Amino acid sequence: MNATKVNWEIPSLCVITGASRGLGRVLSLSLTKKLPRNSIIALIARSEEGLKGTKQLIEECDKETQVITIPMDLTTVSATQVEQLLAKVCQFVESCPVKIDQAFLIHNAGTIGDISRKASMFKDGDEITRYFNLNFNSAVILTSVFLEKILKDNIKFRHIIHISSLASQKAIDGWSLYCSGKAARNMYFKVLAQEDPSLSIISYGPGPLDTEMMKEILENALPEVGAFMQKVSNEGKLLKCETTVARLFTILEEGKFKSGDYVDVFDKL
Amino acid sequence: MNATKVNWEIPSLCVITGASRGLGRVLSLSLTKKLPRNSIIALIARSEEGLKGTKQLIEECDKETQVITIPMDLTTVSATQVEQLLAKVCQFVESCPVKIDQAFLIHNAGTIGDISRKASMFKDGDEITRYFNLNFNSAVILTSVFLEKILKDNIKFRHIIHISSLASQKAIDGWSLYCSGKAARNMYFKVLAQEDPSLSIISYGPGPLDTEMMKEILENALPEVGAFMQKVSNEGKLLKCETTVARLFTILEEGKFKSGDYVDVFDKL
Repeated sequence: MNATKVNWEIPSLCVITGASRGLGRVLSLSLTKKLPRNSIIALIARSEEGLKGTKQLIEECDKETQVITIPMDLTTVSATQVEQLLAKVCQFVESCPVKIDQAFLIHNAGTIGDISRKASMFKDGDEITRYFNLNFNSAVILTSVFLEKILKDNIKFRHIIHISSLASQKAIDGWSLYCSGKAARNMYFKVLAQEDPSLSIISYGPGPLDTEMMKEILENALPEVGAFMQKVSNEGKLLKCETTVARLFTILEEGKFKSGDYVDVFDKL
Repeated sequence: MNATKVNWEIPSLCVITGASRGLGRVLSLSLTKKLPRNSIIALIARSEEGLKGTKQLIEECDKETQVITIPMDLTTVSATQVEQLLAKVCQFVESCPVKIDQAFLIHNAGTIGDISRKASMFKDGDEITRYFNLNFNSAVILTSVFLEKILKDNIKFRHIIHISSLASQKAIDGWSLYCSGKAARNMYFKVLAQEDPSLSIISYGPGPLDTEMMKEILENALPEVGAFMQKVSNEGKLLKCETTVARLFTILEEGKFKSGDYVDVFDKL
């Protein structure tokens, strides 16, 4: 069954992680521009400074979007914490002058992990656990609490956007944790989508982006991978965040994918 | 590049997790029968009792295979522990009267997790961490330590057999942790295979097996999944462990898969 098409005319609640910079910031701004006034946007990230910056940009662009900033470290997050922090979001939804009938939960936060070491060089269980806490567990906990507390049945259209990566499909030397974590997330959301057909879920591969994470990749990747990414960068083939967000929005509007599927920025649908 | 074909004539070291029962026990016995005398087989599992049982069965079948039992709880395993426990295995390899020229590391241990709850009902980060410790982290740690300490260059042919599942490819209601964990493992081994072409790695989906785990599935699965599996069972379509092991051995002998790929018992290669 194809996913429900997004209708940008509906006053919406957006909750987005990793909203302090890069793709998360651009996504937050683009959603503000796309959605009607009185929509609510909740920004989650570790950096309070970064969240303030995103909030300011949103307010400069549209004073009537309600912005909530939620500083949260997803590495150590618990359900109780998420529940407490989301109580604020619930209040905004309930006191909103218009009926919020659409919600987006956007899992954008993520780290690349140590990409300078091969798969056979990971021996520290705690290191792997820390990576999965941030890049897998937190997404599961956030999703579960949101579905219980916020994306309730009184919000008619419910979309989950999982920012994934081509690395969830394709092995990249040195990226064993990143590839595995993204593959695990894709599969978690695939199961969720199958279990609950009322949700519309996409795992989206945004392509190689011109962000801080790319700088980290160019600095730390194994030589061959680093050289390849440098070539992509030199040839001007890195995508701007705005470009990949525009493609994502078209994919969401057209709804030509099966809920739970992985869709890449370069896929023809 | 296709995987290296397994040659059953070569004296080998086999290290196998989850060797105390079910598929692990049958795999251990079948390897003993297939490999030449003086091969070494190291059995890892939590249950000492179960390991003794497998050891006894092996010795009844072939007195000249050297069997080492290693009781180990993979939920809490650390690299240091693995290193200590493997010192014993190294001694066996070094003092073996014939040259051990082939090694198999077989990741068979695994748990199904709580399959009675939907994906949106997992809110306890510690529960997810415990699941991944056993079903992902331990496989990574074991692999890394083995490649460093045992599967050294002086052992010419090195095979890693990852017992995966069709659930790594296909979402099953209620199996969010199992599906995600297997998807993560597949991807980890895919990266490892790409990084080290001298290794021959398979992620093998053994099919629906007539084991203790199947009883657990029939008892705890969500109603529709449980009913489906019950039907498969009633129709006599559960595979015997011996059947899937025979198919796995043929796949390994023929080597018609790319190292790092997922291969299902029912795949035509």
